[in-house]
Amino acid sequence: MRKRFLTVTGIFFFLGCLAQSTSTLKIRKSVLQSSGEIVSEFVQLLSIPNIASDAPNIQKNAAFIMEMMHKRGINNVQLLSPTTPGAPPVVYGEVIVPNAKQTLIFYAHYDGQPVNPAQWAAGLSPFDPKLFSSAFDNGGASLSFPDNKQFDPDWRIYARGASDDKGGVAAILNAYSQLKANGIQPAYNIKFFFEGEEEAGSPHLNEILDKYKTLLQSDLWIICDGPVHQSGIKQIVFGVRGDAHIDLTVYAAKRPLHSGHYGNWSPNPAMMLARLLADMKDENGRVTIKGFYDDVIPLTASEKQALKDVPSVDQQMKTELGIRATENPGMSLVEAISLPSLNINGIASGNVGKLASNQIPTFATAVLDLRLVKGNDWQKQQQKVVNYIIEKGYHVIDHDPTDEERKTYDKLIKVLLGKDSYNAQRTSMDLPIVKGIIASVQSTTADKVVLQPTSGGSLPLFLFEKYLNAKTVTVPIANHDNNQHAENENIRLKNLFEGIETMAALMAGGM
Amino acid sequence: MRKRFLTVTGIFFFLGCLAQSTSTLKIRKSVLQSSGEIVSEFVQLLSIPNIASDAPNIQKNAAFIMEMMHKRGINNVQLLSPTTPGAPPVVYGEVIVPNAKQTLIFYAHYDGQPVNPAQWAAGLSPFDPKLFSSAFDNGGASLSFPDNKQFDPDWRIYARGASDDKGGVAAILNAYSQLKANGIQPAYNIKFFFEGEEEAGSPHLNEILDKYKTLLQSDLWIICDGPVHQSGIKQIVFGVRGDAHIDLTVYAAKRPLHSGHYGNWSPNPAMMLARLLADMKDENGRVTIKGFYDDVIPLTASEKQALKDVPSVDQQMKTELGIRATENPGMSLVEAISLPSLNINGIASGNVGKLASNQIPTFATAVLDLRLVKGNDWQKQQQKVVNYIIEKGYHVIDHDPTDEERKTYDKLIKVLLGKDSYNAQRTSMDLPIVKGIIASVQSTTADKVVLQPTSGGSLPLFLFEKYLNAKTVTVPIANHDNNQHAENENIRLKNLFEGIETMAALMAGGM
Repeated sequence: MRKRFLTVTGIFFFLGCLAQSTSTLKIRKSVLQSSGEIVSEFVQLLSIPNIASDAPNIQKNAAFIMEMMHKRGINNVQLLSPTTPGAPPVVYGEVIVPNAKQTLIFYAHYDGQPVNPAQWAAGLSPFDPKLFSSAFDNGGASLSFPDNKQFDPDWRIYARGASDDKGGVAAILNAYSQLKANGIQPAYNIKFFFEGEEEAGSPHLNEILDKYKTLLQSDLWIICDGPVHQSGIKQIVFGVRGDAHIDLTVYAAKRPLHSGHYGNWSPNPAMMLARLLADMKDENGRVTIKGFYDDVIPLTASEKQALKDVPSVDQQMKTELGIRATENPGMSLVEAISLPSLNINGIASGNVGKLASNQIPTFATAVLDLRLVKGNDWQKQQQKVVNYIIEKGYHVIDHDPTDEERKTYDKLIKVLLGKDSYNAQRTSMDLPIVKGIIASVQSTTADKVVLQPTSGGSLPLFLFEKYLNAKTVTVPIANHDNNQHAENENIRLKNLFEGIETMAALMAGGM
Repeated sequence: MRKRFLTVTGIFFFLGCLAQSTSTLKIRKSVLQSSGEIVSEFVQLLSIPNIASDAPNIQKNAAFIMEMMHKRGINNVQLLSPTTPGAPPVVYGEVIVPNAKQTLIFYAHYDGQPVNPAQWAAGLSPFDPKLFSSAFDNGGASLSFPDNKQFDPDWRIYARGASDDKGGVAAILNAYSQLKANGIQPAYNIKFFFEGEEEAGSPHLNEILDKYKTLLQSDLWIICDGPVHQSGIKQIVFGVRGDAHIDLTVYAAKRPLHSGHYGNWSPNPAMMLARLLADMKDENGRVTIKGFYDDVIPLTASEKQALKDVPSVDQQMKTELGIRATENPGMSLVEAISLPSLNINGIASGNVGKLASNQIPTFATAVLDLRLVKGNDWQKQQQKVVNYIIEKGYHVIDHDPTDEERKTYDKLIKVLLGKDSYNAQRTSMDLPIVKGIIASVQSTTADKVVLQPTSGGSLPLFLFEKYLNAKTVTVPIANHDNNQHAENENIRLKNLFEGIETMAALMAGGM
């Protein structure tokens, strides 16, 4: 296995050195020339709020993307709605290519993570896209969108979904129009599949895949989501981690109490929750919950080798992030994301800052994010956490406590197990069609494309396997410092433009 | 000491059995008859927002209270402004009584705790007072303020400041007007002193006491603030705990990170803060910070006896609050508040609930509230916590970290030591004028008045001692379940009406 892998990557690197063909350079020039129209259309798309639960705006996004497809002459454009009424639709379209023997289906999602506009920096706003000369927190200056339509690739657009993942939608659709404009015929039949509730955990993707399984037949799914490698080099990712959430709420007195009159007698829920969370990890950040690292299927030799070949960015990232120490000291970032993880996404109790008051809050709550690797079952992984909580003396309920429960138990906790959870998925690097995909991406760049056995992030890719028996590989395009999932999300235009090149090369079967 | 104390309380109890004199009953009837006007004026006062930092509204409150004084024929009404410009003024007034040899000065504060209106229950609002037939969360029905001006003493008014402490202002001023209306002459000269920034930590009280020390001479300050005993029985409190705050902020990566791509490698600030807080107490809620309980001056024998005489409300409170276990198991509530304490008022990092997203937050913050008893020095007590944090390996700073600091230290924490902190204070129960006060309160009730060596809560009473060499005792009036310092603050009208009786009795030297 190891020898074969080295041979394969050796060939790709050789191809890489020959890469950036005439076609690539032609597309690159053409993208820059069209950058005015590309950005203008993209900004219109970003201006439509895209939280999955915001049905009216989700419909507007879907309609806008359908119109983008119509403009490009894409066929069979339609909304794929799940059985469940009111859920966000998938926007679908296709291009059947004469003599093409295989079909690629391109996936991106047009919904975005929830936003708290108050947390965005001054001058930025989730759904009012803003242009900066570079990262705003790294000396970038605010710019007006230029009339002369000259866009510098180092400029950035700030908006929710800029990178995650309307950038993916824009890259895929513009790749197709660029091929068309430059008279290059795709080597595959092409299908387009743009999901509208990925950030809500894709709760209806199963229904859609099941309902439209005939329409959605393909030889490979290309998932365009996530960032390129932190080194700036393009990457292909062959798997994703699974993801499971747990919401915890610890209860104290039924009404808020004066911390002077009752403090250190009536229990403090923030302290109770702190104690509960603190013991989930040791001082090195290793999870101490019983059996947490059990069930993990070890990496294969070729996957281990791929990890070794990934350029190390640990020191670069420490400097960039302003951190000196990491969790799991001695473990590299790529090693860390090969393990199951436990993270606190948020914690809240009472008030802080100017709103702080001398009270004992009535409850304290936290959101846990568990990432899973091959071998983990999400329900089993959640249960390990629940077992830990029970061992800590808590009575676990799934609702706010009743008076009877308050009378009966010393320590009460509401545990909500996220149902939008799923397992990890991984596609073999050795499938013939996958080798072609690697070669296509490699054809657009002189750098050696980074091959990652798994992303640290998650997508419900197991569903494609389950309902369509389909394989997936992920070809991300966003800059790594895009603030996806948080305030001040952005995309560097160079990444959008190079993303168009990458997607075009994939459609064309190499440049 | 013990024998003497028993004798004193024995006399008071005897007096108590004889109590509720004709005068008390006369005032009680008169208060009920005037309840329409009393409540109407009170609701107007509660409708003016009263956060100490809100200067325009603070001025409106002060003007309204001056007008209340003018209406009652109180003399020398004026605003006492500190040297610092713009700080909330004290509203002052006085009544000089022919032949009176001693002066009582009545204190209350008209500012309230900060509010987060979103946390108030549906239908309630901090500055739009609402009437309920009893506690809204205990079956109380929403009522319109009646036209016929009949107020049932069990009704409650919900608004910020209803109990803490505009209720005090209303009780004191209405006590004076009730005495006047019923032809009862005060036994003391009376001064009125209504502070406007107590909930902000009284940062300019020192300036005011110093600047107006001649005007403010008296034989005793009566502090009308806080709740009556949880049993519903009136109480007198002879001291307060000191109070000191500490704001903690732990830092992780400079920008929010995707919890899948960086989780378990880049540090999680919520977990770091949880670990730091968790180790501050043991599993029984006893503070483990080195030397935390040192410096405490033990209670005297008479104070210990007073504690024993306080009716136990522990079981009642557990039932009422819906808690089964308490911190410091085996220790009663009154014992617990005789010790220094450490409480978390609030904690926050990232987002929870619907706004939760798959991120590693950039920081986590908490507010600690330290209560102090006689013997504690507030700066020393804060320093003990700082020493603990340093022992935990943190580099302590007082600002957001610089890049250089991020490069130099593994663990960074911003520690802001609250400057609005102060020490505990206690007045002897055995002073002759204090004995008179106890007798006056006892004259209004058949119950044995509860005598508390100290409140669990805090007021900067040490300032009166420092600048005026004055003594203070606290005579609270609010219901204990008033939600002071939190959302849904309220006062039961019975407590307001009985508070008027109590204040009238104090002015009259007993009824």
